[in-house]
Amino acid sequence: MSKLKPKAVILLSGGLDSVTALAVARKKYDCYALSFSYGQRHNVELEAAKNIADIYQVSEHRILNIDLGQLGGSALTDMDIAVPAVQEKGIPVTYVPARNTIFLSYALAWAEVLKSQDIFIGVNAVDYSGYPDCRPEYIDAFSKMANLATKSAIEGHIISIHTPLISLTKGEIINLGVKNGVDYSLTVSCYAANEHGAACGCCDSCRLRKQGFEDAGIADPTLYA
Amino acid sequence: MSKLKPKAVILLSGGLDSVTALAVARKKYDCYALSFSYGQRHNVELEAAKNIADIYQVSEHRILNIDLGQLGGSALTDMDIAVPAVQEKGIPVTYVPARNTIFLSYALAWAEVLKSQDIFIGVNAVDYSGYPDCRPEYIDAFSKMANLATKSAIEGHIISIHTPLISLTKGEIINLGVKNGVDYSLTVSCYAANEHGAACGCCDSCRLRKQGFEDAGIADPTLYA
Repeated sequence: MSKLKPKAVILLSGGLDSVTALAVARKKYDCYALSFSYGQRHNVELEAAKNIADIYQVSEHRILNIDLGQLGGSALTDMDIAVPAVQEKGIPVTYVPARNTIFLSYALAWAEVLKSQDIFIGVNAVDYSGYPDCRPEYIDAFSKMANLATKSAIEGHIISIHTPLISLTKGEIINLGVKNGVDYSLTVSCYAANEHGAACGCCDSCRLRKQGFEDAGIADPTLYA
Repeated sequence: MSKLKPKAVILLSGGLDSVTALAVARKKYDCYALSFSYGQRHNVELEAAKNIADIYQVSEHRILNIDLGQLGGSALTDMDIAVPAVQEKGIPVTYVPARNTIFLSYALAWAEVLKSQDIFIGVNAVDYSGYPDCRPEYIDAFSKMANLATKSAIEGHIISIHTPLISLTKGEIINLGVKNGVDYSLTVSCYAANEHGAACGCCDSCRLRKQGFEDAGIADPTLYA
């Protein structure tokens, strides 16, 4: 990584969106990838994140163990709540309470330690699952809060939260990634992938991803179970 | 706890301020106390929190293990940075990057799971150490963000962040606590307390606490080393 590029913290889940955000960020920034082990149902996603961080030669990849599952309330972290096969109305049970707020808060902390002023998150408000913490008004409010929260912000080093995918459709995200050399076969989006990383093909996340490849006119490289 | 009281999440460090916030909250709320094991130098503070949660018979006390020390950047979590004996100018090295943002984010998550709309935090902007995330403008910004972040907020259940101590001096906080039956000998504020919970008597936090008891005209019950 060139030492002339400014540092940025990239939230990297190992899914399609976060990898695309990383591919965009690395053109201008020295990238520090941040992932979380938060009681997900499987570790396939984190294995994908490690693999991607390695391939993209990020300056550092940290995986924080955080106690999110302990609070419960989501099908993604609570084994007693089933992931539904068909899309629900409203905000789905796969919603994890305050997840992006917690993730962005850690990114803010790490950015301050690194003396970085830039955070990337691959949220998307178009072909999304109805999560409140993926909307532009939420990101704006987090950004205002962040700039009052830290010592470095108080000292005049304004923090920017970059959301390069926020207004794109899933098809447009895939086209943007392919243009930036992303190999989507490395990514895992499925909420219920098996231990080999094979996707179920029918959950909300699989459905959006499949449709995205169709819309982008690109062959879907996803491994399905 | 009466079932008629609404639920509130109380951030409980085991220090003087958070106990006072709990004493205020419990008059009107069914209290759920939240503490963090975040790589503090010692566990004396957490032992105090457990003890207090027990004495106040909170409905539940959760201690989350979170990987804050792993990010570094503070004398409170990084053994390579010494806690200074005299007060520094500006924001001190005991500042932990984005700490209150991370703590409040978890409180927000738990509040949503509990279907609670009330969070208490014992921040104080008067006799404080210059931390940016203790100021009213920060709390207001967090509150705005929180009300865009969660499923329950979107569904109309407005979250309130209560800061009953924010405009009080340390002496006034102590008087408020004593009025509400707080036994401050149970609390630990020192940044460098020894393994028996005895305070150093000279760090920034000890200095503010000592002065507080003097201003309140109340005998200081703190155990000093």
